[in-house]
Order: sequence, then structure tokens, then C-alpha cells
Amino acid sequence: MVRAIEWVDAAADSHIRLIDQTRLPSEEVTLEISAVEDLIAAIQCLAVRGAPALGAAGGYGVALALLEAERKGWDAETLTATIDAIANARPTAVNLAWGANRVATVRADGFERTLAEAHAIAAEDEQSNRELSRLGADWLLARVGDRPLRAVTHCNTGALATTAWGTAYGILHELHNRGKLELVYVDETRPLLQGTRLTSWELHQDGIPHLVEVDGAASSTILRGLVDFAVIGADRITANGDTANKVGSVALALACERRGIPFVVAAPYSTIDEATATGDEIEIEERGDEEVLAFGGVSVATPGVRAFNPAFDVTPNDLISAIVTERGVVEPKVDAQPLFGSSAL
Amino acid sequence: MVRAIEWVDAAADSHIRLIDQTRLPSEEVTLEISAVEDLIAAIQCLAVRGAPALGAAGGYGVALALLEAERKGWDAETLTATIDAIANARPTAVNLAWGANRVATVRADGFERTLAEAHAIAAEDEQSNRELSRLGADWLLARVGDRPLRAVTHCNTGALATTAWGTAYGILHELHNRGKLELVYVDETRPLLQGTRLTSWELHQDGIPHLVEVDGAASSTILRGLVDFAVIGADRITANGDTANKVGSVALALACERRGIPFVVAAPYSTIDEATATGDEIEIEERGDEEVLAFGGVSVATPGVRAFNPAFDVTPNDLISAIVTERGVVEPKVDAQPLFGSSAL
Repeated sequence: MVRAIEWVDAAADSHIRLIDQTRLPSEEVTLEISAVEDLIAAIQCLAVRGAPALGAAGGYGVALALLEAERKGWDAETLTATIDAIANARPTAVNLAWGANRVATVRADGFERTLAEAHAIAAEDEQSNRELSRLGADWLLARVGDRPLRAVTHCNTGALATTAWGTAYGILHELHNRGKLELVYVDETRPLLQGTRLTSWELHQDGIPHLVEVDGAASSTILRGLVDFAVIGADRITANGDTANKVGSVALALACERRGIPFVVAAPYSTIDEATATGDEIEIEERGDEEVLAFGGVSVATPGVRAFNPAFDVTPNDLISAIVTERGVVEPKVDAQPLFGSSAL
Repeated sequence: MVRAIEWVDAAADSHIRLIDQTRLPSEEVTLEISAVEDLIAAIQCLAVRGAPALGAAGGYGVALALLEAERKGWDAETLTATIDAIANARPTAVNLAWGANRVATVRADGFERTLAEAHAIAAEDEQSNRELSRLGADWLLARVGDRPLRAVTHCNTGALATTAWGTAYGILHELHNRGKLELVYVDETRPLLQGTRLTSWELHQDGIPHLVEVDGAASSTILRGLVDFAVIGADRITANGDTANKVGSVALALACERRGIPFVVAAPYSTIDEATATGDEIEIEERGDEEVLAFGGVSVATPGVRAFNPAFDVTPNDLISAIVTERGVVEPKVDAQPLFGSSAL
């Protein structure tokens, strides 16, 4: 199975290895990263992306920072600032800060303990992905019908977005393995085309029948009855079940609501931000104009024109049929509030 | 003002002149078209597009066919088949067939009478665009508030999509001229980027403040309260007020419904297909895979992957706040059915 991120043990130069996802599918290039500065750049240009993979990147980043601090003789203040910089490299993705902060709490116990904690994040992520995929597939077959289903998904939530297996993609993969997946409509996911470049590449490798569509087609694909459900991942889920995910996600939720079919959000429990009450409080990352206005470095717009480029949108909880984590399935439309937090699941 | 399509009178070679909209905004190229075959190719590759402009293309196409028939000695059967081929060059756009058929009814009266009828279509289109723009601006300022408004639009409905002035774009232009337009969010409009390439180019020329966004951003732009209304054009409006427009349009309608802001459709009355009862009966044109899977001729997808590429979607009448034509404003949510036809407006 493909590994979006892994730790490479080497006597003199242990480091992080990433698949450069900006180059897929035309080139399969790995990045060997030994400096935190390069890791942050890779996170910001989306060479590594996807909420769970970013959790691992945050964790391994702390281990990398410890090695770099020793090599370069950083003082404690520089090390702390560097770890903060990793945690805050992308504002909307809660997993990145979660991974960095979890591993940072053990760094006083030394490098080996720190690296072990980062490895634990990666191992737990794969385990939780496989568990939530089973739960999600069970829920869908019980709710929609025990037959081959047709799905629509947005962005990439497969092995490339996680440390292995996948979240929303994992549910599709699980259905496929059970012989219960007929066809997947994949949104291309502008501006960076994670659907066309990454999800379709994974589906092709896994032998899963699919069609790529422009993001604007998803609403009518749903309204015309061409699919039985929609499933997406999440970059942050607030205590009430509001969900931040790649821009364009809420369009699927609105169409599913109108058509009366399930809209499912799948994510590891670490994506849940119990400290944030609702989606209104989520800061939405805005990215550069050139992602919207140019293709392959060539501008398609009139010179001087500006873009609005939010990376995420928020789907309100009442449009979500099910939130699937490794701990179980909650149904925001029927379960008691708050869905998540000290008193909840 | 830019002219997407015009008739060029020349002693030996009268012909149609088009702006090649596939080359904008990087190149401003005109096509001089003397053969029907070339006109049909230009229509199918979207060198000329937009419902009202296609009405004129259908009309001028009949005049062109008469000249070509005389030059090449076609029999009546060949001429009729050629005119049918123009009318059916794109299945969803009702105006194309409308224009061709209207002009074809007078062709027995000779070339001059035929050309005059085509010119009449173009002149009436500009007149109707200006009238519907006044009506639409009046309705919006009365309904939303008499202050500078913020809008979102999809695809291109300006001078390039019509014979002059524009429909949905015309309303925006009219509001701008009245000092009542603050900002326009322009959907890029995948797969062919009519928003980025054409609408933004027109707005830039007209000095209207705007931001280009990916199509997937439109729903959250609306849900976050960043705009006061959405306005789009239409390629076909059925008797009950269901509307076919560029794929991605219905996403705006769903979000406006949820946010409680107006979703306005603007089109000349010739767009109304009284003979078709509802949107369920509209044939949706599906176009080639390569429009979705490649940019500038370079594939961005894994080899062997297929696309689903519907060119249009249908917005059901209950999601539409107002349909604005030169004959007036109808409100599908409140006005009696059928909205259009012998017994209606």
C-alpha cells in the first residue's frame, strides 16, 4: 500500500519521506525531508495533505525538530517556536496541531520516546481508518440497502490523505471489497484537482469503477438520482457536529438533503475539536490567487483580476446524516447535543 | 461594445464574423465564416456560445446556408438538411433551433428577406436584454434593498453570450450604472472556464469590481452571507419555470434557498420553451471526457480514467425567486402554473 508519509531510520540522517502529491499522477516523486523548514513548505504547498496524514506529519515533525535542534544547537526557545510553527502551518486542519502537540508533550523524555509517540499516531490512524470503514459500510448497507451502491465523493481521503487505508475512501474501499460498490463519481476538486489527480489514481490502482466530474456537476448528479449517497472526509468537526472540509463539500450536502439520500462524513476521532462549539468559530484558510487563476503556471485570466480562494467550507450539522469515526456512528439529525465532548460519545 | 457575432456584408463573400471565445482572454481572434460546416464546428467547440448569441447564430446560419446553396448548387433537400444540422448542433440550447427555424420560415421569400429576419433577431435580442436588465435591477433593488449589492454569478451571460449587452450580466451592468453594485463573485465555470476567461474579462473592461472563485466555493460564499443575491442566465426554460443552465447553476439555487436570498434567472423570452412542460423532459448534452481531464491539451488524470461531463443542469422552479424576461418578472414560488404558455404571460 502507498504511504503518503513515513519515517526513515538512518544512522546519520533519520528523516521524513513524503510522496510529493503536487506531482501525481504524472510523476511519482518522493521528498526526503531533514529540516523542519522544508516540512513546513511541503505542508503549505500541499505536497502532503489530508487531515490524518497531517496528524502524522505534525507528530513526525516534532521528532525531526529534536534531531535538528541537536544538530544545530538550538536553545529551548527556538525549539518550542519551531514546534509551534509546525502546528500552525495550516490554520484549518486541526489534526496537524493535534499531532504536533501530542508528541511535544513527551519530548522531555528524549528522542526515542518522541519518535515512538509519532509512530503511535500513524499506527492508530491506520487502525482507526480500518475500523471506521467497517462501521461506515455497515451503516450504509443497513440504511440504503444491501446491494451494490453508487457514490459521490469530493477531494481525496484515501491512503494519500492518511497514513494508510483512508477515511471516506476507506468506506468506499470496504464496500468494494464486500462487492457492494457499483460506481463512484469523483469530483475533480478545484483548484488543486485532488479528485482527478489523487482519488482517481487510487481508485484506478484499486480497480474501483469511477467517473471524474467537475465540482459543479455534483449537485445535479445527486438531484438526478445517479448516486445513492455522498461520503466525504473532514479537516475539523466541532462539538455540535458542524464539519469543515475541502471547499465544495457543502454543495453535496445541500443536494443530498433535497434528494433525501445520506450525506456521510468519515474521519478519525482525532479530527473532532471538542473545544470548538460550532462551525461559525472555525477560521477558514484563504489561499493564493494563482491557484484559481492559473493552470500549470499559465494564467487563464485577464491580467490584474483577483481571486477569492477559501480552502474549506463548513457543512452545518443538520445537513449531515452520519458522522463516522472509529468510536462509532453519530447521527446529528437525531442524536442529542453536544454530539462530542466530555459528556458525549 | 464587443460583438460576439455579426454579419459582414461583402460583394463577393458576405459571411459571419465571430469572436473565437475559446482563445479569450489571452488572444482576441475573429473567425470569418463562409461555410455552414465551419459554423457548426464553431458552435460545437464553443467558439460562439451563450443562448441568445446562439439564437443569432441560428438565424445568420440560415442566411449563410442560402448563399452556400446558391454557390454550390445544392438541391432543396440538401439545403433543408443543412438548416436542420444548424438547428441541432447543440441539443440543450433552445435558442439555436428557435433562431434557425424562425429565419427558415421566410427563406422562400429570398436571401434579402432571410437576412433581414436574422438581423431582426439580433436587434430584438439587444433590445430585450436592455429591457430585462432594467426590470431585473428594479426587482432586486425593491426586493433586497436600495443600496449597493453584492452578487454571485455563474458562466458568461454578457455581451459575449448575446448579440449585445447581456442577460444576467446585463442586470449586473445596469446595477453598476446606477451605482448599486458593490462586488461580484464570479464562478470560474469548469470545465471551460467561461467565468474566468469571459465574464471576468467583460467585468474588467466595464470596470466592475469582482473576484473569481472556484465553482465549489459558490455555496459557502452564499451560506456565509457574502452576497445578497445570485443571478444566472438560462439555455432553456420550460413552461413550469424549470431552468436548464450551465452545469453548476443548481448549486447556487440550493444555497440561496437555504440562506433565504433571491436566486434570479434572466433570459430573453425566446429562451422559454412553452412546448416542454417540465425540466424532466430536457435532454442534457454530455460532452467529451477531455474537457474535464486535460488542461491546455495536457492530461491531469491517470491514463485510462473516464469522465462524466454533462454541460447543463436543471434548476427546479421552486428554487427560483424570479425569472426575468423583457416581458416582465414572474415569481415561480408564488405565481400560478403554468408560468408560460398560451394562457400565461
